[in-house]
Amino acid sequence: MTTLTAPTPALRSRTDTGLPARLARSAAAREGAHLATGDFADWLAARGRANRFRVDRIPFTALDGWSFAEGTGNIVHRSGRFFTVEGLHVTHDDGSRREEWYQPIIKQPEIGILGILVKEFDGVLHCLMQAKMEPGNPNLLQLSPTVQATRSNYTKVHKGADVKYLEYFTDPRRARVVADVLQSEHGSWFYRKSNRNMIVEAVGEVELHDDFCWLTLGQLGELLRRDNVVNMDSRTVLACMPFDGDPGHALHSDAELRSWFTAERSRHDVVAERVPLASLPDWRLGETTVSHDQGRYFDVVAVDVQAGSREVARWSQPLFEPVAPGVAAFLTRDFGGVPHVLAHARVEGGFLDTVELGPTVQYTPGNYAHLRGTDRPPFLDLVLAAGRDRIRYEAVHAEEGGRFLNAVSRYLVVDADAVEAPLDPPPGYRWITPWQLSSLVQHSHYVNVQARTLLACLDPGTGRPR
Amino acid sequence: MTTLTAPTPALRSRTDTGLPARLARSAAAREGAHLATGDFADWLAARGRANRFRVDRIPFTALDGWSFAEGTGNIVHRSGRFFTVEGLHVTHDDGSRREEWYQPIIKQPEIGILGILVKEFDGVLHCLMQAKMEPGNPNLLQLSPTVQATRSNYTKVHKGADVKYLEYFTDPRRARVVADVLQSEHGSWFYRKSNRNMIVEAVGEVELHDDFCWLTLGQLGELLRRDNVVNMDSRTVLACMPFDGDPGHALHSDAELRSWFTAERSRHDVVAERVPLASLPDWRLGETTVSHDQGRYFDVVAVDVQAGSREVARWSQPLFEPVAPGVAAFLTRDFGGVPHVLAHARVEGGFLDTVELGPTVQYTPGNYAHLRGTDRPPFLDLVLAAGRDRIRYEAVHAEEGGRFLNAVSRYLVVDADAVEAPLDPPPGYRWITPWQLSSLVQHSHYVNVQARTLLACLDPGTGRPR
Repeated sequence: MTTLTAPTPALRSRTDTGLPARLARSAAAREGAHLATGDFADWLAARGRANRFRVDRIPFTALDGWSFAEGTGNIVHRSGRFFTVEGLHVTHDDGSRREEWYQPIIKQPEIGILGILVKEFDGVLHCLMQAKMEPGNPNLLQLSPTVQATRSNYTKVHKGADVKYLEYFTDPRRARVVADVLQSEHGSWFYRKSNRNMIVEAVGEVELHDDFCWLTLGQLGELLRRDNVVNMDSRTVLACMPFDGDPGHALHSDAELRSWFTAERSRHDVVAERVPLASLPDWRLGETTVSHDQGRYFDVVAVDVQAGSREVARWSQPLFEPVAPGVAAFLTRDFGGVPHVLAHARVEGGFLDTVELGPTVQYTPGNYAHLRGTDRPPFLDLVLAAGRDRIRYEAVHAEEGGRFLNAVSRYLVVDADAVEAPLDPPPGYRWITPWQLSSLVQHSHYVNVQARTLLACLDPGTGRPR
Repeated sequence: MTTLTAPTPALRSRTDTGLPARLARSAAAREGAHLATGDFADWLAARGRANRFRVDRIPFTALDGWSFAEGTGNIVHRSGRFFTVEGLHVTHDDGSRREEWYQPIIKQPEIGILGILVKEFDGVLHCLMQAKMEPGNPNLLQLSPTVQATRSNYTKVHKGADVKYLEYFTDPRRARVVADVLQSEHGSWFYRKSNRNMIVEAVGEVELHDDFCWLTLGQLGELLRRDNVVNMDSRTVLACMPFDGDPGHALHSDAELRSWFTAERSRHDVVAERVPLASLPDWRLGETTVSHDQGRYFDVVAVDVQAGSREVARWSQPLFEPVAPGVAAFLTRDFGGVPHVLAHARVEGGFLDTVELGPTVQYTPGNYAHLRGTDRPPFLDLVLAAGRDRIRYEAVHAEEGGRFLNAVSRYLVVDADAVEAPLDPPPGYRWITPWQLSSLVQHSHYVNVQARTLLACLDPGTGRPR
């Protein structure tokens, strides 16, 4: 006698315990199976020559498809899609001090996909990266993830070409997921924007298209040491790679760390309300800019774009242009032989949930030039004055070139000592290991985009700058 | 020669590996060191006799300190604190279907603390629980966490007595943190409400006040099988206890599960905008209720409260009163000997971030009585028709009695088979182990309050109903 039963489905291990070591092996590979690291600059330059790019500043009146909406003065596209530039009114009370400000903000509610396809060659994981023009990039062409698609992109609002390799990120039969998490973007410039950060490992062969190349994590680590090469979308996705070699110990247990984070989130009372762009006190509309009365923060500007390698050949759009370069830095110290970085629970008006962990220092120094003494942002002067012998990592990176024009920051990891950066730091700051940070990045709303850039610049095997 | 160096700080293990086993041991203890389980009902009844409680329905005009705000018709307190009753306009597009509705909603932006203090007696962890009156509880007096304090409570807006034991949750020297996480509350009734769910282990002796008792997790498990004894605040905090005995395997790896959740969150487009209460189509204001035209969902009502054991002796307030009891159930199946529950990625208008994981079924059946066939909510009829032999857990619990009047639901865990609840469930549903659910509850915005109630009713050692 036989009993008819359904076949027992195979269970999977909750965690892929082999994956972190494979990623660490890729991070240790300074050369790849396809493109030699030494040939990368020539390859990128050739891709630039193969495509025609041109970006010109234009007055708002010359924008095609964009206009100031009646009543609000918000900058909107005639399709109702893409994004809008609106106003934001933020009040923030941290329990001891209340502040309030108005600013322009980009509202782009739709969730895009930023995805890196990975695949083993010669037993080493390689990432499929793309040479991609974005109008706001200082050098136009940078290295982007395999896929960088807004929902408008892949639902064809702009009537452009298909997004290459998108099927690997939407069809589970084509690839196995390594990481997939919604991450916030710049809370000072975006209203509650998040993108889906995905890493998937291809099943089977992958066709190689023009403008794409396979690179190991070690090669990408090398390129991350160069200025303005690896774009922000690549950096935030790379930050989602699980770390390896966790020593398992830290100054604070994970439960203590989450408790501190919960207390920080509860301590800050943030109310962010969208208001008409035309109503913002301290901001004025000109022919070519919306700018702050004291010349601080950023301008809203307009550009005309001509491109040969993008989905459509010509378009115009608004961009945010910071008035000066920023600086974003982690202070770092070893405790008991384990590297820690000093995270800052930051309020940014556009965050969905109050605070996220940012670098120790994240400022545009020019905006604070008028402040003195204890009014100066904590640790900023320490970072600005750090000598070469203290700087473990340094490079200039640009923020998302599709929305931000020349939004460059100097990213640093700086050694600190017990006097400058004590074990028991000021309220809002906490020592955390790169492995703890890497665990938190697997979930939404914990780590901001600048801290994720710095995390991407750490070696996922050692937790130290590459 | 000696070198002056700072002492090396002690590192901690990232996870307290001994804790889950200690919790499982407490869960296995059916009797405690202080109060016998068999004496609990008498103890609670005695606490009820020792305090005087009276709740009367009153017309809105008889509310003291509360009124309908001019212009909006929102219900507000003259202090500007506590909470307001406003209107909400929700549009929801899941990619295939668009829906839209208006409803009253409670807005209470301040974050409260729900905390359970634990301590070992005779080597077994006990929870300090409180017999507490809430005006909306069906039997008024239920078992609450050690501390249940809004920020108004502990900043004395109501000029009442101190919150007992609060210092254990605010002073890290008094207790060691077990769990501390912001959790959402009812997304259908609250606008983006979250509370801090805390479990802390006391350092040193703890004074025992009137109305408080020490109970093991096993005793609480027994009381969770009784109707209307353990209040919602207790249940959500108990759900944050880490589970033990993880088999380490599941139908889906954690990375796959997070990827599915990320996809669900991205798929649903939810816009929830606050509107004036007076402007809601389909809702009408009477002398004693704000109610839905078809008599569905809930009424807003007003009550007068007299109490001897609360911080202030008499007050009045609005409450939400559902029109009928609800049902909340997990379908459960074993795969490869490992228990799984069928989670549902639910949209609720008041959630901060689109969807959270809810039970398989979470409905007020009366609201769907007019629907037939495929319009019926998935799995609802299966749960309503389940025979005794399929029901692994069943009890009636009330939602938060400080805001909701007689808001009772039948909570169930129901065995399902491969035909009723297939391995590959409909979109929006996913099989997940209790250990995976328990991991997610350590982070915000993943698991809704009804699923947390059901999680609290599972044994943290076996993952099965106690």
